[in-house]
This record gives sequence, C-alpha cells and structure tokens, in this order.
Amino acid sequence: MRGAVLYGPRDVRFEERAAPAIIKPTDAIIRISATCVCGSDLWPYRGIQAVTGPTPMGHEYCGIVEEVGSAVRSVKPGQFVIGSFFASDNTCPHCHAGYQTSCQQKEFVGGAQAPLLRVPLADGTLVATPDVPSDDLIPSLLALSDVMGTGWFAADAANVKSGATVAVVGDGAVGLLGVLSAQLMGAERIIAMSRHETRQKLARELGATDIVTERGDDGVARIKDMTNGIGADSVLECVGTQESIMQAIRSNRPGGSVGYVGVPHGVELKGEELFFAHVHLHGGPAPVRRYLPELIEQVWDRKIKPGKVFDLTLPLDQVAQAYRAMNERRAIKVLLRP
Amino acid sequence: MRGAVLYGPRDVRFEERAAPAIIKPTDAIIRISATCVCGSDLWPYRGIQAVTGPTPMGHEYCGIVEEVGSAVRSVKPGQFVIGSFFASDNTCPHCHAGYQTSCQQKEFVGGAQAPLLRVPLADGTLVATPDVPSDDLIPSLLALSDVMGTGWFAADAANVKSGATVAVVGDGAVGLLGVLSAQLMGAERIIAMSRHETRQKLARELGATDIVTERGDDGVARIKDMTNGIGADSVLECVGTQESIMQAIRSNRPGGSVGYVGVPHGVELKGEELFFAHVHLHGGPAPVRRYLPELIEQVWDRKIKPGKVFDLTLPLDQVAQAYRAMNERRAIKVLLRP
Repeated sequence: MRGAVLYGPRDVRFEERAAPAIIKPTDAIIRISATCVCGSDLWPYRGIQAVTGPTPMGHEYCGIVEEVGSAVRSVKPGQFVIGSFFASDNTCPHCHAGYQTSCQQKEFVGGAQAPLLRVPLADGTLVATPDVPSDDLIPSLLALSDVMGTGWFAADAANVKSGATVAVVGDGAVGLLGVLSAQLMGAERIIAMSRHETRQKLARELGATDIVTERGDDGVARIKDMTNGIGADSVLECVGTQESIMQAIRSNRPGGSVGYVGVPHGVELKGEELFFAHVHLHGGPAPVRRYLPELIEQVWDRKIKPGKVFDLTLPLDQVAQAYRAMNERRAIKVLLRP
Repeated sequence: MRGAVLYGPRDVRFEERAAPAIIKPTDAIIRISATCVCGSDLWPYRGIQAVTGPTPMGHEYCGIVEEVGSAVRSVKPGQFVIGSFFASDNTCPHCHAGYQTSCQQKEFVGGAQAPLLRVPLADGTLVATPDVPSDDLIPSLLALSDVMGTGWFAADAANVKSGATVAVVGDGAVGLLGVLSAQLMGAERIIAMSRHETRQKLARELGATDIVTERGDDGVARIKDMTNGIGADSVLECVGTQESIMQAIRSNRPGGSVGYVGVPHGVELKGEELFFAHVHLHGGPAPVRRYLPELIEQVWDRKIKPGKVFDLTLPLDQVAQAYRAMNERRAIKVLLRP
C-alpha cells in the first residue's frame, strides 16, 4: 500500500509502505474511510519539532474493521469504528479515572494517512457506530477521532458552565470546535480570538458571539474591556505557544479556569504570576476515548456537525498538497480519502 | 506603641512606632489579642526576598475592635474579630466569586506584630466571633487569620474528596493544617512529607496516616510505591520552591489535583511536562475571608483545634527570638502576646 511519510521539514511523500498486520492478539486492522492532517502534524512539518527519520504520518482515523487479533472481543470485521490517537486499554486506573491518554499501556497510533492502519488495544481504543454510516456523516465522525474530542476536553477542562463567558485562544480546527463545545455546554457569551475572516465566519456559525482580532496583551486588554475588567470565566487555550498560554491565563478571571490542549512548544510558566493569577489550570492530551460514545451519539442523531471544520477534501495521494494548504493557512483542515 | 520592624536579613527590632489611626471611614483599629510569625515572614528575614526599607511586620491577627471609621457598619468597638492578611471589600465580583485575596480593592494588612493594628475595609475584612472568646480559644482563632484558612484552601484547591489519598508537601504550620483540612474533608489516606520528628508527630495527631521522609524524586517514588504506581488523588503544595512544586505535580495521578499555597520563589513550570502530567493546578493567596465564618464556628464549637501548630508562646517584646526560633526550625510557629 502507499501512505504518507514525513522525511523532514516540508517533505511529505506518498510512498510504498508495508501494509500493517496483526502483531499482538489485541490489535485490529482498520480499512480507513477517511483521515486528515492535524495542526500538530505541522510542528514537525515546519521543522519546529525534530524528525529523526522517515515517519509514517497521521493519527486521526475512522473506517471499517478489516481483521482483529484473537483476543479482541468488542469489535469485529465489518463494523465502522473510530478511535483516538492514543491507544488505551480502558481498564487501568488512569482510564477508569477518564484519562485514557495517560493509560498505563498507552501507545501512539501513527501512520493513519494510509489505506490501512493497525490499532493496538482494539477493545479499549475503538468505538463502533450503530451501523455503517452514510457518507455525509463521515467528516463529522472523523472529527471525533481528535479535534472534536480535543475541543470538548478544552471546554471541559476550562469548566465551562451554563451562562458563562468563554474566550477561545486559537482559531484552528480545535479552537473552532472548542467554540462549538462551549456552546453545547451552555455558555452565554463565546469570544473567539481570530484574525482570519473565513475562520471568524465559521466560529460564528459554530456559536461564537464575539470576535477579538487582537493578540497577546492587546487581546487580554480587549477581553478585560468586554467583561467589565473581570476577565472570562473560562478560557480555552488551543495553540501551545508561550504567547497563547499567557494570553489565556491573563484573560481569565481570578477563580476562573483555563483548559489547555495546544501541545506546548517552549512554554515556561512563572510560578509567581501563576500564583497571583488565581486561575485553575487543566489540560494535556485530550482523553478523546472518554467522550467518544456520547459524541458519536450526537453526530449519529445529527445534532452536531463538527465535520464543518473540513474546508478542503483531497484524495489521499495528494497528501503533500494537504500539508501545504494547511501550512499556508489556505485550509482550516483537510480531509483525505483513500 | 512598640512593634516589630524588619530592617534587613535577620534584623527584626521591637521599637517605637506611631500608633495607627483611622485614615479612611472604612477603617477599623484593632487591639491585638494575639499575633504570630508566618513562614512567609521568613523569606525577607532570610534575605531571599528583598527588604527595601524598615518594614512593620506581621499579618496574622485577632483582637478587640477599638475604634471604627464612620462608614463601618458590620463590626463595632468591643467585639472580638478576625481578619485576613489581605483586606477585601467582599462586594466586588472577585469577592463574590470567593476570591477575596484578588479583591479589586485589596490591600495588604501589615504591621500586626504590635499592640494596635489598622484594618482597611473593615466591613468586608473582619468577622466577629459570637462573643469575646475564652482565653484557651485564642490560639485556634488566631490560626484562622492565615495558616488554617491557607491549609484549608490548599485542600479545597486540591479538590480533596471523601475517601481520597492525599499527599502534603511541606511540614510547616500550613502543611500541618492542610493535613487537618484533608481529614475534615474526609480523606482516607493522608501522607505527610516530613523529616522532622516533632512535626511528624503533630501531623499524625492532626490526621496523617503515613509519613514520607524522602524529598524530590525520591519522595515522588515513595508516593508512587504507596499508591500502586498511580499517584495521590490530591496533593497540597505548602512550600513554594521549584523542588516542592515539582514534587507535588509528579506525586499526583493523571486527572488528580494539586493545590498550591506556598508563595513561589524562583519557580518555573515547563509547559510540556505539565501538559503530559494531566494534573489540575489551582492555588494562590488563600481567600481566607471566604472560609472565616465556617471555620470560626468549628473552633467556637471546639470541633477543631488548629491552634495546636503554636508550639511556642512569647511576649510580643521578644519577637526577635520568635523569628530566630522559627528560622532555626526550633519552633513550628510562635504565638506572640502583646
């Protein structure tokens, strides 16, 4: 089969790779219905995160179970399934606490930008839909594999409550779905921080009531202005830079909560500022698996449409173009069809 | 009157100062019944925090109202009152949210190691006891002015729940009262991290079920050992150094909570480690005022005895000895009587 492999900065190749096979009895092989490029794929693509050797890319996936190992009980060939970027056993104490991305047996699922994918710990990782979905549901189901679950975790970690004022830092797919999540959780006012017109438009469509184009300290000042000097109750940090996390903390009111899901790159928090900010901080790699059952139900019942973040669809063999489009911010998120 | 003034490292003098007077109509003057030396007073005493000029010391106090400004309504001369180290109006949005130490009008209350003290924003800051207390209640009521409220906030911020496993980093008065608070909140297992025999003994008396003497990474390894590799549900950080905060974060389980109340000195948190630790972080200057009514009731009804942390009582004019005893860890906390 052919799949996407990153060789170095801006060098993604669609090339022949060995098709995956069952290695452990707990594995499953999935025939990918759709996959996509993640904002976090851009860190190594841009050379900000080192690439040590040719790396099969992609960690967002949904598709039909092709084959299962002898120990797999909860999914079977022919079922349509969705899983998270971290495989988890869903039985260890961390999984029981709802933190499947800290599973004691966790394993990163890589190489999903390909027609076939091996998923370890299939019983704990994969969740089947009620039936094989109609084609129009595929984008929204795929979004649950990472970005929707991550936006939802950001809002959950930021303790979004009914009636709250929420600010969202970051207008990528995760930030936009953080807006949707905050709306679903009953936020009254949702301030999307974005300076890109197409993303502002989508943010409004997903529930944003206000747009702030300023960044950094100016962005903080705008949020304070808009909240009588108090700050937002909840802030979702969906970028991962020093500027964005400080923008999030400083936009939050004392006693408020920051949910951070942007993978930090070179971020350092000063203890003293954090102390006097009086905020709650929570975040990390989103335990997408925790939310899959309820989010699948919402998509299945056509109550939510997180697939709206895909504004470009390409055949899988044009994966290099997909990276370019996202890198140049010509696309919010690119869906790939094998 | 004579009061304690810090001139520089290890130079506390008990000397003549102007008696305080009502400056604003919202002020009250208190005749101090008891005051004490705080762990945080030791930072400037040790020269770790700069002293810019002669500084009247002390921010923990209880006593009899001597005089009130014309706008004060909720307390009157003759009443016994307790207040926090930050004066607060108790009416602003931050106070309403329970974060009185981030009050929009907050003002530090300094100079309490003296016979008389001016307390700004008296209506919002001071809470009166049902009556003038008997003498044996004074130490426990004084403890509510800071250390008990701070230990309580640490446990609250660390989200201590019934049945939880809790670790407490720091065996000063705040850490010890964090142990008591965790017990009152129903923790099943309370691990006090201490290498001092008298403090270990008091920790056990206040509710600790286990003692860990190791520090840093060794301390973390012990906590992990004791919790089947999982980590503690809640960790109270009551020191404020880089080592202690990292010890707290690394001792916590994914999804657990760290409550930090030790004023950070030179602390820097790396974004990436924090991200993958998956912990909740909350803390800051304890909103003691929030807890005063319920804690006063508990002390008044003799259900709790936080005054146990005072293991040395001296007349106020021996305040320099009090600092020495605490600095040399010969005393946990020194109560001073004018």
